[in-house]
Amino acid sequence: MEIGYLNGSFIPKEQISISPDDRGFLFGDGVYEVVRWYEGFFFDMEGHLTRIKRSLRELRISWPRTDLFPSISLELIKQNKLENQSAMVYFQVTRGVAPRSHNFPSPDVKPTLYAHAWGYTPDTVSRESGIKVMLKEDIRWSRCDIKSVSLLANTISFHEASVNGLKECIFVRNGVITEGTRSNIFFVIDGTLFTHPESNWVLSGVTRKNVLRIAQEAGIKIREEALPENRIRFTQEAFITNTSAEVTPVIDIGGNAIGGGVPGPVTRVIGSKFNAEISALKR
Amino acid sequence: MEIGYLNGSFIPKEQISISPDDRGFLFGDGVYEVVRWYEGFFFDMEGHLTRIKRSLRELRISWPRTDLFPSISLELIKQNKLENQSAMVYFQVTRGVAPRSHNFPSPDVKPTLYAHAWGYTPDTVSRESGIKVMLKEDIRWSRCDIKSVSLLANTISFHEASVNGLKECIFVRNGVITEGTRSNIFFVIDGTLFTHPESNWVLSGVTRKNVLRIAQEAGIKIREEALPENRIRFTQEAFITNTSAEVTPVIDIGGNAIGGGVPGPVTRVIGSKFNAEISALKR
Repeated sequence: MEIGYLNGSFIPKEQISISPDDRGFLFGDGVYEVVRWYEGFFFDMEGHLTRIKRSLRELRISWPRTDLFPSISLELIKQNKLENQSAMVYFQVTRGVAPRSHNFPSPDVKPTLYAHAWGYTPDTVSRESGIKVMLKEDIRWSRCDIKSVSLLANTISFHEASVNGLKECIFVRNGVITEGTRSNIFFVIDGTLFTHPESNWVLSGVTRKNVLRIAQEAGIKIREEALPENRIRFTQEAFITNTSAEVTPVIDIGGNAIGGGVPGPVTRVIGSKFNAEISALKR
Repeated sequence: MEIGYLNGSFIPKEQISISPDDRGFLFGDGVYEVVRWYEGFFFDMEGHLTRIKRSLRELRISWPRTDLFPSISLELIKQNKLENQSAMVYFQVTRGVAPRSHNFPSPDVKPTLYAHAWGYTPDTVSRESGIKVMLKEDIRWSRCDIKSVSLLANTISFHEASVNGLKECIFVRNGVITEGTRSNIFFVIDGTLFTHPESNWVLSGVTRKNVLRIAQEAGIKIREEALPENRIRFTQEAFITNTSAEVTPVIDIGGNAIGGGVPGPVTRVIGSKFNAEISALKR
């Protein structure tokens, strides 16, 4: 029986009940994180904790005990006996329950805390062979830096990719590539690594940050610059990053093969170093 | 005891429980309507029904029995003994309950249907004396024509107005006025009525449509054109419309008085004719 977490209690997930007056349900007024458990540890829990604190602060959602996020996550892993396998924890914090009004409740109500964990099987085929993605105009709001649950633009865009047999939808805004519906995207041109800089147009990915660090340590030249859509044809490599995909090569964008349709050398180096870092932590 | 509606059943609202796997809670993946009961009838239920059908179609949420929307709404009015007063019905349809994935569930799952009703006291002071509003860059997504529950941009913008003592936040995108966080906005310049045309940048308000019809019947010149922000100073009148505010004058925008800070004649004519239409239906 799966054990979930709601507002301080670990209970069977099927017993978890959300109020219809929860602002998560009525307004998408909440934030979330997905953290990955690698058979013994969470990778960069600190990065996720820092980010959820920022998301909450930007939305003025008050959860004073953000410091409990790691221990609640760990307890879910334990209670669901997931210690010795690959797993994920999903953690959502909404502004709480209040009669429906666009206005925030005043005084503040208690935020709703919901989390659950599940065993996760990585998509090793995609990570090895790469994925094909589509391009689409970025229809999201202008605060993509907040990891909120108002994700309708992301879900309908991802679904559009999916029904076309593609693994991600990459957004274009004002002529430049921003990111994917659930990932950041990197490009390699003549040995230099490009990705959109941190801004209101992209989410600051935890894996994105680690990849930038790893690339820097490996002496790879980095330019945090938005790639114009019309420069995609000059890229020799591309890859997406997120907590589940880690470093996953992109071999086709909108029907145009990248790097001859096979993962490139810079992508492989970064992917290997990322994997090596995880392996070293497992010891 | 308040009676609500969930998936076919009329039950005490406090017993209504939403699954944490509901896509409304996880993704803001749903649509809604708010319909108004005027002591004996719903005003333009047909307009709301047409719009929710369109929202569902655009998001490919399948609820074959949309025709039940009016009868469920009426039953909520009856069960809550609201027949003889002013009331509202809130109706939300989400894509349903499924394990979390950006992808739509395949095959389709049953949508979640949630509704409730409450006695409503109109804000007659605002409707008589007018309101002050703020202006802000439109931070919403580019499908504002869909009445979805991914409303975070709207709530944080409305809240910003509210903490500044203002009754609405009006959005500006690419230099033109689009609409409010929960209303459409109209302007009067030299006797001509201006409002943003129907497009992906605004919600097609039910009251907006009725006001346009009423203005046309009254022989008022109409231009469905986006007003550039820098033309606000040339407007003699402004008003917002929505189901709860009906026709509410705007007497100050961003600290600049409109029409000397009092509701203008065209606004009053349209407001009176709107009220007269409601009164005629009451007989």
